[in-house]
Amino acid sequence: MPADTALVLERVDRLASFTEVAGEITRPYGTSALRGALDIAAAWMEEAGLACRRDAVGNLIGRLGPPGEPAFLLASHVDSVRDAGRFDGPLGVLVALAAIARLGDARPVPLELVCFADEEGLRFRSSYLTSRAFAGLLPRHELETVDDDGVPLADAVRAMGGDPAALASACRSPAELLGYLEVHIEQGPVLEAEQLPIGIVTAIAGQSRGFVDVIGRAGHAGNTPPRLRADALCGAAEVVLAAERAMGATPGLVATVGRLDVSPNVGNVIPGGVTLSYDVRHQDDGTRAAAVEELRAAAAEACRRRGLRCGWRPLQEHPAVPMAARLRRRLRRAVEAVGVRPFELQSGAGHDAVSAAHLTDVAMLFVRCRGGVSHHPDESVQEGDIGIAIDVVEGFLRGLGDA
Amino acid sequence: MPADTALVLERVDRLASFTEVAGEITRPYGTSALRGALDIAAAWMEEAGLACRRDAVGNLIGRLGPPGEPAFLLASHVDSVRDAGRFDGPLGVLVALAAIARLGDARPVPLELVCFADEEGLRFRSSYLTSRAFAGLLPRHELETVDDDGVPLADAVRAMGGDPAALASACRSPAELLGYLEVHIEQGPVLEAEQLPIGIVTAIAGQSRGFVDVIGRAGHAGNTPPRLRADALCGAAEVVLAAERAMGATPGLVATVGRLDVSPNVGNVIPGGVTLSYDVRHQDDGTRAAAVEELRAAAAEACRRRGLRCGWRPLQEHPAVPMAARLRRRLRRAVEAVGVRPFELQSGAGHDAVSAAHLTDVAMLFVRCRGGVSHHPDESVQEGDIGIAIDVVEGFLRGLGDA
Repeated sequence: MPADTALVLERVDRLASFTEVAGEITRPYGTSALRGALDIAAAWMEEAGLACRRDAVGNLIGRLGPPGEPAFLLASHVDSVRDAGRFDGPLGVLVALAAIARLGDARPVPLELVCFADEEGLRFRSSYLTSRAFAGLLPRHELETVDDDGVPLADAVRAMGGDPAALASACRSPAELLGYLEVHIEQGPVLEAEQLPIGIVTAIAGQSRGFVDVIGRAGHAGNTPPRLRADALCGAAEVVLAAERAMGATPGLVATVGRLDVSPNVGNVIPGGVTLSYDVRHQDDGTRAAAVEELRAAAAEACRRRGLRCGWRPLQEHPAVPMAARLRRRLRRAVEAVGVRPFELQSGAGHDAVSAAHLTDVAMLFVRCRGGVSHHPDESVQEGDIGIAIDVVEGFLRGLGDA
Repeated sequence: MPADTALVLERVDRLASFTEVAGEITRPYGTSALRGALDIAAAWMEEAGLACRRDAVGNLIGRLGPPGEPAFLLASHVDSVRDAGRFDGPLGVLVALAAIARLGDARPVPLELVCFADEEGLRFRSSYLTSRAFAGLLPRHELETVDDDGVPLADAVRAMGGDPAALASACRSPAELLGYLEVHIEQGPVLEAEQLPIGIVTAIAGQSRGFVDVIGRAGHAGNTPPRLRADALCGAAEVVLAAERAMGATPGLVATVGRLDVSPNVGNVIPGGVTLSYDVRHQDDGTRAAAVEELRAAAAEACRRRGLRCGWRPLQEHPAVPMAARLRRRLRRAVEAVGVRPFELQSGAGHDAVSAAHLTDVAMLFVRCRGGVSHHPDESVQEGDIGIAIDVVEGFLRGLGDA
């Protein structure tokens, strides 16, 4: 195993030891576990020659290159979900650091490595909390959000060594930035199925989420003949299968009913009501909107035909975030240079790149993970894939010096 | 309103006042609420000239006619489910008592009115507890069953004034019996849809109940393309719709998925597992068995096609209980005599008649209930329908004197 791959794996394990809950990896914002992880990451970055600082929300920023000049950003996060795996977040920081360390003074442009302090949003049920501050997208009033114990976000910012009053200072200017690259585990099974170690992200898919309420009429399972039933679960089953059919009709679309709750949910009572979730994603916003509209129409039609009422409750609409074509081309070249077939795929999950895209061109490199498993202790990445990812990021960064 | 209909309604309300939980009707076995209800029922029966006794499990038995001769039984129950309606059980006792009171000495044969003390099985999760003792179907070891507080059934029998040691004495002999008639609310919407006050039961449907386990693979809703999914909920949705289709294919069949539990049941995770209930009923056991087998095959086929595993867990198989043709004919005549269209329907729910059928010929008369609602405070029966039911039972009993 190359020495720097071994070092990445050793450091992944070291970061995993920082946890608020013994026996698992649980590293929310504002905790001593997260402070410890950031402190040791700062030590490794300084060892590699980066000049480190913290911003007003606790993000750790290491810089290689003279101050004042625009820099290319590499970034990932070091917080975690509850009972997490060890690669989601840390791998991106450590692969980038390994590539930067190989370059040293050979860096073609100034580089910054950013360890975002809260991407997962475990404690404050947020999204991309500290990369939004970095991009100027964290409104001041959000500092009043409280966690489950009633502690406001502002207090957690202070606990990270940050300064809520200086929130605006965390915000970077586009003029300072040459672009952004984030390395992350895929959190899906596509690369494994393609037998590829890495993949180039085309876009972070846009997402529509919400709930469908199907209202029928509960009744005795023995004494209600079919013609007198208004079975909400039968209507809901049609919605589940309509979502599946939508995927077959539109390449790249994913549509999922992940949650379904039946009322009263008793074996000998005809279901009177069902609430089910929908989650529709595609890298093209128009395609996604059309698919959601079709699903809504299919649900309404199934319910109308069955004498059920159908309520449609949209919850979230996130537009797609395309990766910059110029950076994708550079990544493609770097992948080809290490002898791997360049393969592009969309990201169904969101990442800090969503925030960064408000500031500068962004790109993402996915690393294969076993079985597509993430947000789980079984998260696993092959050492060979890590070595290839370091090579690709090194090549990509060297290429930034070319026209 | 005829005086005896008014009396039935007044007594329904009076029985509803006996409850273990203030503000609702909750009258389980072995409680002072149930003892109070049986005591007042005994007083009403004696007022009508019946000689009352209690058997070894607390059933109240009133007799009109000389001892030693075979008697025709009328019966229903006075216990309740939790937060029950007021008609399920008591209506059958009170309609029968009103009809008996009209006959008095004009009874063509000795009559017995039985108030069963536990049909619903609320406290010991049993079925037809005390009518099984009446029919010799309650095994001695069942007296050791405990309730949620660890109190054994034997103690509850004593609390009802019964004697667990004398269990066998509760068992009646077929030679003592001329037949059995039970009046009950329909607990379904068929009579309402037919605009009929009463209906004659053809059979208590046989029932197959159990669970289906559909096992797929959980995955990220954004990052798992359709070809790499094994979505357990999509498979389960096919099973739900297959059960519904089975009803369309076989007249009189009811097939219901009342319960469905998704794992992990999170909006952005592809369901990895689903457990769903099935409940299939028909008055012909062979037809029911064939329908269950078809459903099982449909579930297996859907799962095989989708790369899911399918587990089939039968839980209960209850054979159908046909009503005696000779009693149905007599009921038909009695219904015609009051100017109502005779209408036959199966009972999807079980009743004490299931136990009694082990001793003698049984019949049941259903009374329309509003919206098919039962086991709920909203249970409701029209006063006119009660009057018709009394007339029919009176006519039926008078007819027992004919050849």
